[in-house]
Amino acid sequence: MASPSHTTDHGGDSVKTQSPELRKDPVTNRWVIFSPARATRPTDFKSKSPADTTPKPSSCPFCIGREHECAPEIFRVPNDPNWKIRVIENLYPALSRNLETQSKQRETDTGRTIVGFGFHDVVIESPVHSIQISDLDPVGISNVLIAYRKRIEQITQHDSINYIQVFKNHGASAGASMSHSHSQIMALPVVPPTVSSRLNGTKDYFDETGKCYLCEAKSKEFVIDESSHFVSVAPFAATFPFEVWIIPKDHSSHFHHLDDVKAVDLGGLLKLMLQKIAKQLNDPPYNYMIHTSPLKVTESQLPYTHWFLQIVPQLSGVGGFEIGTGCYINPVFPEDVAKVLREVSLA
Amino acid sequence: MASPSHTTDHGGDSVKTQSPELRKDPVTNRWVIFSPARATRPTDFKSKSPADTTPKPSSCPFCIGREHECAPEIFRVPNDPNWKIRVIENLYPALSRNLETQSKQRETDTGRTIVGFGFHDVVIESPVHSIQISDLDPVGISNVLIAYRKRIEQITQHDSINYIQVFKNHGASAGASMSHSHSQIMALPVVPPTVSSRLNGTKDYFDETGKCYLCEAKSKEFVIDESSHFVSVAPFAATFPFEVWIIPKDHSSHFHHLDDVKAVDLGGLLKLMLQKIAKQLNDPPYNYMIHTSPLKVTESQLPYTHWFLQIVPQLSGVGGFEIGTGCYINPVFPEDVAKVLREVSLA
Repeated sequence: MASPSHTTDHGGDSVKTQSPELRKDPVTNRWVIFSPARATRPTDFKSKSPADTTPKPSSCPFCIGREHECAPEIFRVPNDPNWKIRVIENLYPALSRNLETQSKQRETDTGRTIVGFGFHDVVIESPVHSIQISDLDPVGISNVLIAYRKRIEQITQHDSINYIQVFKNHGASAGASMSHSHSQIMALPVVPPTVSSRLNGTKDYFDETGKCYLCEAKSKEFVIDESSHFVSVAPFAATFPFEVWIIPKDHSSHFHHLDDVKAVDLGGLLKLMLQKIAKQLNDPPYNYMIHTSPLKVTESQLPYTHWFLQIVPQLSGVGGFEIGTGCYINPVFPEDVAKVLREVSLA
Repeated sequence: MASPSHTTDHGGDSVKTQSPELRKDPVTNRWVIFSPARATRPTDFKSKSPADTTPKPSSCPFCIGREHECAPEIFRVPNDPNWKIRVIENLYPALSRNLETQSKQRETDTGRTIVGFGFHDVVIESPVHSIQISDLDPVGISNVLIAYRKRIEQITQHDSINYIQVFKNHGASAGASMSHSHSQIMALPVVPPTVSSRLNGTKDYFDETGKCYLCEAKSKEFVIDESSHFVSVAPFAATFPFEVWIIPKDHSSHFHHLDDVKAVDLGGLLKLMLQKIAKQLNDPPYNYMIHTSPLKVTESQLPYTHWFLQIVPQLSGVGGFEIGTGCYINPVFPEDVAKVLREVSLA
């Protein structure tokens, strides 16, 4: 039952069995239970349900030539019939872009309801059904990142929007309802709870140390790979097994300040991480999320707000413990994840 | 694309299509996006993957007669070979019960790690594989609730434990690794984030109004059914579709103060809710969680800490938006859920 620290031997490959441990880092600002006794060896993690994205449905409205079946287009890149990327409205938006007037008129009565104004857009990452984002070259991926940036810049014109979440669901069990490679941009009238927690946690760290926690990531977290301007790490208190963060080396509060040169550099490292995760974990469904800062941050908040990109392979579901407590159980220590992912060979 | 308030007609049954709205209640203390435009009618929600718990594996260690295959027993009810309920250690515990000494010796160095001391127990709810908890009569369910209470009372003797989470995962996609009906008790050295949020939210409400938010549930939430001592509601800002709360009518801070009479009364209402959810939603996988108060609450916290039981049918997964923001999108308004569940006939 217990898992005292001792070394067990599995067919010649020696593995240290560690005791469970709770960890908290300033970025998530919550405790995670690391419980290696429940797991197999770090190298044995595999997806049981690989993201099956290859079979093309008989008709996919995201494919080139079927643009008329989609919700209205916002822009395309390049702006001609031979597009590479399209940004469109979501056909089933969670928030309505037509409620801006009402959202300004109706001040919340009790502070417990807000009119559901916001934007919910889709970024189609390729004209071709079979191309996934990790199949694109670094410049191709940078064009997707630059499309995110452009759409964010447009949305920031709306005063009522306070936070913009860019995210990607890859594979049905990661929440993707369409198999054609795409990501989503959701612009919200409120600052979400993970963002408030992150600002509180990194502010506390800054007040104690005078430093931005994520500027120090290379020494505090477990480095996997790096490029000229970015580093990929297994975070110290990773919420999910094989979770990876890609962090700008230079302090930067907002994703949408990314320039074109750094976008290509990030595209290369993102491609490498997605390829390594796919190879090591048997092509799992995954999500990635860009964690940026609220649109309206004060000057005093800038020193400790540092954006990053989080990749989460979907290896396990959520049960009553996680729903009840908001705590997560991670069966693999991030130092082991970093070692495994550093050594993945794509040759 | 937009969803202005208008009435649509689906085959004669008139449904009001509402605009999206954000809501926050003091108990979860976070915004939920209600987005009915994404959904079918409230009555059309069905589980696509019913909890298939009937096929008995060739050998189940939770069945009567196989006790020797389980981790050590803590107690059984009644205490003889013909038990009805067994409380045992989890064979793969997330926390270790053998680290209590270390947890007291090793004060956290940076405040960022804690020794993984805690308890992780399993409550086997029936000796028979095919009996689910909703098949038991109210007295049978009360015996399960009283077993939770007894185990909690034992664990409270350990000073290092600050919170105890009781939860049930029913069905594989709700996180159950064993199909034999069981629930789990996890005793933690930390107060989890959902609990801190709840204490903050209900304290703010108490400071504003002088009242406990959950004592007022009958007027603030959407009532489904009630018994002598409990009321079941669809909460005002439900995080998940068809989420149900069962709330004690009289103010009570801790679940483990439940007496035997009220346990039978709760058993009856819990059975009714589980049966209604199973019938209405096509026997979905589900979780239930008991939200109680930290073991060490101060006198001043008592007026606004009020325990309740949350039932969450698993109808939709979690994607990048939810992981990224901690916000949830609920496609059905709780007022509609309450109406649907009130009217379910079990005859």
